[in-house]
Amino acid sequence: MVRSLFDRAPFAFAQGRADFLLAAAVTRTCEIPGITQAGIPGQIPLTPVLDAEFLCTGRVYSLDDPAKTASGIPTPGLLTRAVHELHPFASLSVLDLGLEHAPRYCPTVSFGFTPTPSIDKPESFDAEETFEAGLDFGRRYRLSGDFAVVGESTPGGTTTAQAAVGALGYDTAGHFASSFRHAPAALKADTVRRALATVPPGAGTFARLGQTADRTLLFTAGFMLTASRRFPVVLGGGTQMAAALLIADTLARQLRIAFDPRRLTLCTTRWIADDGASDIAALLRQLSFDVRACYADFLYTDATVPVLRRYDEGEAKEGVGAGAALAYGLGNGLSPAQITARVERLMGVA
Amino acid sequence: MVRSLFDRAPFAFAQGRADFLLAAAVTRTCEIPGITQAGIPGQIPLTPVLDAEFLCTGRVYSLDDPAKTASGIPTPGLLTRAVHELHPFASLSVLDLGLEHAPRYCPTVSFGFTPTPSIDKPESFDAEETFEAGLDFGRRYRLSGDFAVVGESTPGGTTTAQAAVGALGYDTAGHFASSFRHAPAALKADTVRRALATVPPGAGTFARLGQTADRTLLFTAGFMLTASRRFPVVLGGGTQMAAALLIADTLARQLRIAFDPRRLTLCTTRWIADDGASDIAALLRQLSFDVRACYADFLYTDATVPVLRRYDEGEAKEGVGAGAALAYGLGNGLSPAQITARVERLMGVA
Repeated sequence: MVRSLFDRAPFAFAQGRADFLLAAAVTRTCEIPGITQAGIPGQIPLTPVLDAEFLCTGRVYSLDDPAKTASGIPTPGLLTRAVHELHPFASLSVLDLGLEHAPRYCPTVSFGFTPTPSIDKPESFDAEETFEAGLDFGRRYRLSGDFAVVGESTPGGTTTAQAAVGALGYDTAGHFASSFRHAPAALKADTVRRALATVPPGAGTFARLGQTADRTLLFTAGFMLTASRRFPVVLGGGTQMAAALLIADTLARQLRIAFDPRRLTLCTTRWIADDGASDIAALLRQLSFDVRACYADFLYTDATVPVLRRYDEGEAKEGVGAGAALAYGLGNGLSPAQITARVERLMGVA
Repeated sequence: MVRSLFDRAPFAFAQGRADFLLAAAVTRTCEIPGITQAGIPGQIPLTPVLDAEFLCTGRVYSLDDPAKTASGIPTPGLLTRAVHELHPFASLSVLDLGLEHAPRYCPTVSFGFTPTPSIDKPESFDAEETFEAGLDFGRRYRLSGDFAVVGESTPGGTTTAQAAVGALGYDTAGHFASSFRHAPAALKADTVRRALATVPPGAGTFARLGQTADRTLLFTAGFMLTASRRFPVVLGGGTQMAAALLIADTLARQLRIAFDPRRLTLCTTRWIADDGASDIAALLRQLSFDVRACYADFLYTDATVPVLRRYDEGEAKEGVGAGAALAYGLGNGLSPAQITARVERLMGVA
């Protein structure tokens, strides 16, 4: 069952076959100790490569084990892969928005980007170039199925999302999620504060974003504006995708880019919808348009592997487009028990 | 019209939509001065990246101009791109078998490979690992259309093909083509001789190939064996693809790998079929099975741009799967005049 994020009523998710695009990027923000648990300590920047490999092949090549959090919580990408095995996406592509190296065995599109500096450092990245690459790709992308899902793998990305949205003047207090059950709120707030302090007075929008955002946010903002003129686009993610929407909204108004918000849908997990420590709806209500937003009503109730229950307690929550993949799977007749069983098989425990 | 390479009779080319895969690799052999004209002097190793970008997007990003030969002969990839624009492939993928860097804006699959040493040097590459990557990819590749075309971009590749096939004990004298109208036969023969001299006495098959071949040959050999169990495979190329077939044949027999040669077709250009300086049929007759082999009966008769006529005089001849792309286009109702006009438009001259 897919439900509206706003009133929890049943929600009509996109029909047909989905192309799945993984926006994958590294911001050195992820190397701030304790900021994220999306990956293996000391190797967090590898997470998007590992997520991509696992998504495309069911295993990882650039490391011995699939991406795990420090406390051993498996990647949400397991859900995306499980759905893909049970009801395949029409196509899978990885968008290399600045990775450590190309993932193996994945159809990957390079844009010539490298990882971006940590947002608490004075160095910035070219936000305008990244946004334009997204606009361009949205114009030229050849759809295989009926609509596109954009998921993301960007460790540290909720912190950059908060900084970027704050830099644009939106209200962010208490709205952004974390991969931790108990978010390191003080550390994240301090990082955002230091990031905002790097923005020169009077900086323009792209300059602000170059100091505070990440490439996933800028590229996805550009992509959704042009792609949604051509086909429906599902933003598969939580508060990071809400931030991409706010950035797209801001830039579309400033640059007078016409687009049709009715072909955009944000889709996330129930773990984000239920999260008491963040408020995605409060972010989405700051958009200048009414956005379609939903979540997949899935919990790990059927899990026999105890570590998966930690998701229901609030760990990890979202990533690799898990919420949208679940909605796609459930909408196409898969049961939660079936998906959970496949996740456990992928973990090698069932 | 598509014709048999053996008797020039009309030939039934594969029906339906084709996935196009570009096997793209760098062997430092291409840096031997004068060995190839596939690219811009001093930047030959970039050619596969530029071919990939042009194939996927109609322009290049890693340089100002499309790959040209030293004498200014445009890449055969123009034909492949022209056909793709007029009758699109079901999908396009680049297989990065060791490139200088990832091509931009192309769906590219990485296998973790780097360029291989020049064959006239004592250093070798891991031929077995490359062959196994091809076997593995042939088992797992998800076909979008009805069959797959494998083209190649591997500068210096006719020289490595000759060396590799010679290292396996096949007859090669006068059989291999060149991108030059007047092949630098002495230079190529000397390079092959020096390459064969690097093979230690008593070396096994993979050790021989690691000293003499390139990754395109080994990967394509592996891919065709497993992929052809699942769907028809067209080897889009001339004497290099004939060499990949001979390598596959040798390895399949040695390693007892079962495969069905009836689902394999080699398809090349008329420029290769008509080439008096090489003899692809003589290579194919050394296979242990009867192979389906054909060429696209296309010449640049309709060209208004004089430089294109140089193809009909024997320059360039084949590459980027041009022959197979032409057969695909002609088989799907395109006329030679239409294809030529689109090539000229891509060159910005019509």
